[in-house]
Amino acid sequence: MTIYTAPVRDINFVINELLDFNAHYQTIPSGAEATPDMVEAITLEAAKFAEEVLAPLNQIGDEQGCQWNDSEVTTPEGFKEAYNLWVEGGWQGLSHPVEYGGQGLPMSMGLIKSELVGTANWSWGMYPGLSLGAMNTLYVHGTEAQKQTYLTKLCEGTWTGTMCLTEAHCGSDLGQMRSKAEPQADGSYNITGTKIFISAGEHDLAENIIHIVLARTPGAPEGTKGISLFIVPKFNTTEDGTITDRNGVKCGSIEHKMGIHGNATCVINFDSATGYMLGEENAGLNAMFTFMNTARIGTAIQGLAASELAYQNALPYALDRYSMRSLSGVKNPDKAGDAIIHHPDVRRMLLTAKAFAEGGRAMIYDAAKYSDRMVQAETQEERDAAENELGFLTPILKAFLTETGLESASNAMQVFGGHGFIKEHGMEQIYRDARIATMYEGTTGIQAMDLIGRKVVLDGFKLYGGFCKKLYKFGFKNLVGGKRRGYSAKLIGYTLSWNWHTVKMVARASKNRDAVGAASYDFLMYSGYLSMAYYWAMMAEVAAAKLAEGTEDKAFYEAKLETAEFYFSRLLPRAKGHAACMNSSTDSVMAMPLDRFTTR
Amino acid sequence: MTIYTAPVRDINFVINELLDFNAHYQTIPSGAEATPDMVEAITLEAAKFAEEVLAPLNQIGDEQGCQWNDSEVTTPEGFKEAYNLWVEGGWQGLSHPVEYGGQGLPMSMGLIKSELVGTANWSWGMYPGLSLGAMNTLYVHGTEAQKQTYLTKLCEGTWTGTMCLTEAHCGSDLGQMRSKAEPQADGSYNITGTKIFISAGEHDLAENIIHIVLARTPGAPEGTKGISLFIVPKFNTTEDGTITDRNGVKCGSIEHKMGIHGNATCVINFDSATGYMLGEENAGLNAMFTFMNTARIGTAIQGLAASELAYQNALPYALDRYSMRSLSGVKNPDKAGDAIIHHPDVRRMLLTAKAFAEGGRAMIYDAAKYSDRMVQAETQEERDAAENELGFLTPILKAFLTETGLESASNAMQVFGGHGFIKEHGMEQIYRDARIATMYEGTTGIQAMDLIGRKVVLDGFKLYGGFCKKLYKFGFKNLVGGKRRGYSAKLIGYTLSWNWHTVKMVARASKNRDAVGAASYDFLMYSGYLSMAYYWAMMAEVAAAKLAEGTEDKAFYEAKLETAEFYFSRLLPRAKGHAACMNSSTDSVMAMPLDRFTTR
Repeated sequence: MTIYTAPVRDINFVINELLDFNAHYQTIPSGAEATPDMVEAITLEAAKFAEEVLAPLNQIGDEQGCQWNDSEVTTPEGFKEAYNLWVEGGWQGLSHPVEYGGQGLPMSMGLIKSELVGTANWSWGMYPGLSLGAMNTLYVHGTEAQKQTYLTKLCEGTWTGTMCLTEAHCGSDLGQMRSKAEPQADGSYNITGTKIFISAGEHDLAENIIHIVLARTPGAPEGTKGISLFIVPKFNTTEDGTITDRNGVKCGSIEHKMGIHGNATCVINFDSATGYMLGEENAGLNAMFTFMNTARIGTAIQGLAASELAYQNALPYALDRYSMRSLSGVKNPDKAGDAIIHHPDVRRMLLTAKAFAEGGRAMIYDAAKYSDRMVQAETQEERDAAENELGFLTPILKAFLTETGLESASNAMQVFGGHGFIKEHGMEQIYRDARIATMYEGTTGIQAMDLIGRKVVLDGFKLYGGFCKKLYKFGFKNLVGGKRRGYSAKLIGYTLSWNWHTVKMVARASKNRDAVGAASYDFLMYSGYLSMAYYWAMMAEVAAAKLAEGTEDKAFYEAKLETAEFYFSRLLPRAKGHAACMNSSTDSVMAMPLDRFTTR
Repeated sequence: MTIYTAPVRDINFVINELLDFNAHYQTIPSGAEATPDMVEAITLEAAKFAEEVLAPLNQIGDEQGCQWNDSEVTTPEGFKEAYNLWVEGGWQGLSHPVEYGGQGLPMSMGLIKSELVGTANWSWGMYPGLSLGAMNTLYVHGTEAQKQTYLTKLCEGTWTGTMCLTEAHCGSDLGQMRSKAEPQADGSYNITGTKIFISAGEHDLAENIIHIVLARTPGAPEGTKGISLFIVPKFNTTEDGTITDRNGVKCGSIEHKMGIHGNATCVINFDSATGYMLGEENAGLNAMFTFMNTARIGTAIQGLAASELAYQNALPYALDRYSMRSLSGVKNPDKAGDAIIHHPDVRRMLLTAKAFAEGGRAMIYDAAKYSDRMVQAETQEERDAAENELGFLTPILKAFLTETGLESASNAMQVFGGHGFIKEHGMEQIYRDARIATMYEGTTGIQAMDLIGRKVVLDGFKLYGGFCKKLYKFGFKNLVGGKRRGYSAKLIGYTLSWNWHTVKMVARASKNRDAVGAASYDFLMYSGYLSMAYYWAMMAEVAAAKLAEGTEDKAFYEAKLETAEFYFSRLLPRAKGHAACMNSSTDSVMAMPLDRFTTR
């Protein structure tokens, strides 16, 4: 069974010492309540909930999975009790406004909660996680009446929410969507269609489920411009939230999946279900992006969670398994072999996961500041700027952190040798659960195209330029006055190289538009290694400064420096391989005609 | 469900056009029978068996798994019938001598069979695969009487074999082994101990199971020098193979694993079981290496199999799934989107798997020539040379091809997007089954240390030098007269860089012995990319020559060239990242004291 201890010390380091959330909170209205004491108290409470309530259910969830029976879904043992505690604790509305029953705290605090919950038990965490997506969409696009009816119940947690996008024939390409919404005399709509891959689409945790559904009204334009958004509850209700009768929404089946068995992935059939339009007609896809961005950051957390959980569980095994002697001399003379953590390659695997976990945490938590500002900054200009910055970072966070999360999980399994393949240790579950993360909410390939296509090229390099400027500014400042000048030099060098490769890639694209796609994956991975280098350089500066001024927590800061050194020496150089690949000819990917792909 | 079509055309290309097996077979006695017609006939028969009998059982095996009940194991539906056909077909003894009932064909032909069987159904293939390990060990180390009793039955396939090495507290470090062998008055031994992770350790396919067991005799030296090898049958028999009574061997339980569910991974309890010494006392570990090398090449095939099967199954999906429009213009105007194979990143993933599969096949089949020569070359000197060459290649093949097999399987799942996570498509099974391959038969880390430590440094760079010479020779020859001079230039360049990094690594090791371990993984991966580049350069030369002389199979050779171009442009450059990592300070991996690894 896996163990989990919330990394509260590292979270505190990130939010207090690295990113100064306290100063940030003084710039947004919801931050007034988020005093350092309050943040600490909530972090500790969430940590307790994650460790004591959710972590023990992680393996049970995997083993039992969800059970479907005649359109009803039963969640694994203990999931409902845990959810009741969640509701009692008022966790669901943490970052939502007080007028809808929330606690009115910043979005970024919700993120701390999401990390802790998601690392302890990702499958369970998806139920409140999907609700959060529905809540955000309702909050931004709902009418006041819709918010009063639905958002209050969702904030309370007595109802949960889902997002119904995918159909069997289309996932990424939502323009192909076919579900229909016929207007009715009373202003409601009659929703018909089948949605698949609906996470948390049916379960026994809450009394009602509010589906946010994409569908087309009659005569709507083809493609993405003819999609509208609808609220479709499982049970119809009165305006004050009293449940009346069952709506025409049924769970047709649940998927049998590689992982996240504890979360029901549902086929949802809408058969003349009553729905209510959310936001403007035909503007559904844009409205859906409100959810998508939340979901993508949420999925980035799954990558961080995989790195953290994998690391935490491989470490004790590496300390307690004795095999072979260390080449640099006996380390455990009282044992028949040395603890495997003394073997360099085992350390390499552990440190890789550690560097990805801590680096990923810094990246996500910094991005969370933009989430806060996007909603709450004083001027529209500031809000737009924050949204754009977050939009630039989102594909990097989502794709890079989920890819590295998979590597961490795989490495951690590998530390166990053959034992890593055996279910009882729980290591293979971490991998199986995490494997979905690079596929859902936009695959790595989709993120890569979003980054290089929309966020870099179509944006005219503005956001890209701003991002580079931030890195250069930090780099040059610390190249002169910093405590870890070598890292600043590397940061500058890798950014320069990034710029150069970007220019060359764009030059190729002027002749062949597929050049962008052919470079996209390697461009994204390079961007990820570079971004994380920026955070590791910052963390090293903070740690070195703390050590220089004297601290009681010396070991913590020394470990930060050692992990930063590992990152710059052993992980960042991989970007060189990505640079060489992205800089290769487009033809090397595109030349082969379809009929030559066969191996026979 | 996954599909499988034996890649007979590519196998023929490798054995006939690239490696000239026919010429090779004229240099070894068993090759006399292996005429091109015979090789082709056997390949086609094995292909048919793999496609028609084994492939349809692959998903059933995963779903049903093996069932344990009171020390008996039931294999999945259809496994036994398939095994009966295998025995009837005389497949088990294909490469073993006629005097023990085999067909006396070369080892390398057994490899073709292993690829086809293993790709169609790895879990099933492990039953005869493990037998083969036992057979090889018996053949080399058994007395004539032991061979008559056991090897003939194993060749026939009516009995199967296993290899019992691992105990709960030791896998890689077999010196810690505790199982005991007490000599008896009749010359037999009384074997007591518990072995774990015994693949095919118990099942219902054959009438008897011959365990080859590592154990210690009383007073044996500590560590690896006190290990002997024993034959321990499940059922005792007379010398002519008539079964008498049950031996003290019981399957205590089977493991619940991430994958290869169709193969029983057993805890085997030896409780005063009767055993017979195999080979010399205290020389068991060396004798076991006979098996280990077979097993490691066998596991390398699992990597190739994963790449091939993943590719074959992702390709039709990429051709038939329509999503988004290609940036370089509409490709499927009659569809709502273009086939995803037109998107560069999908091609990148497919071509990665294709290049790893075909490159891996060339690498393994070339190594198979050494297996043949190791056993059958005319002089002892030639046999030793072949064994050494194979010994050098083994860790590269085993580790690099299983790592790349995992990447292929993961990429192929990724091509399916969210659907890749759903069991019915079979993509996630390919990954789960393949995941064990980097862990068993020596982890990637163990292979990396074997390569850099034993095969490079301790060998005094002789084999390494010989290998480099082969690459330089090919490179310089074709730099002048070849048809793909650019590849030769790259091959020379990457080999030079390898030499330089090796020198620097060894220099570091003179001050800190952990330098070798810290560089080992990246050194191995570099070696793998470089080795595969050599084969891709050779394949490109052959293909270009065929096209130049005119051929009816133009598409096949064009595809080879396009895949070679992809390899040199998009995969080989990754070696640069590995070079940069391996060249980093040892301290970046080793400096952190144990108590600072915690993240809390």
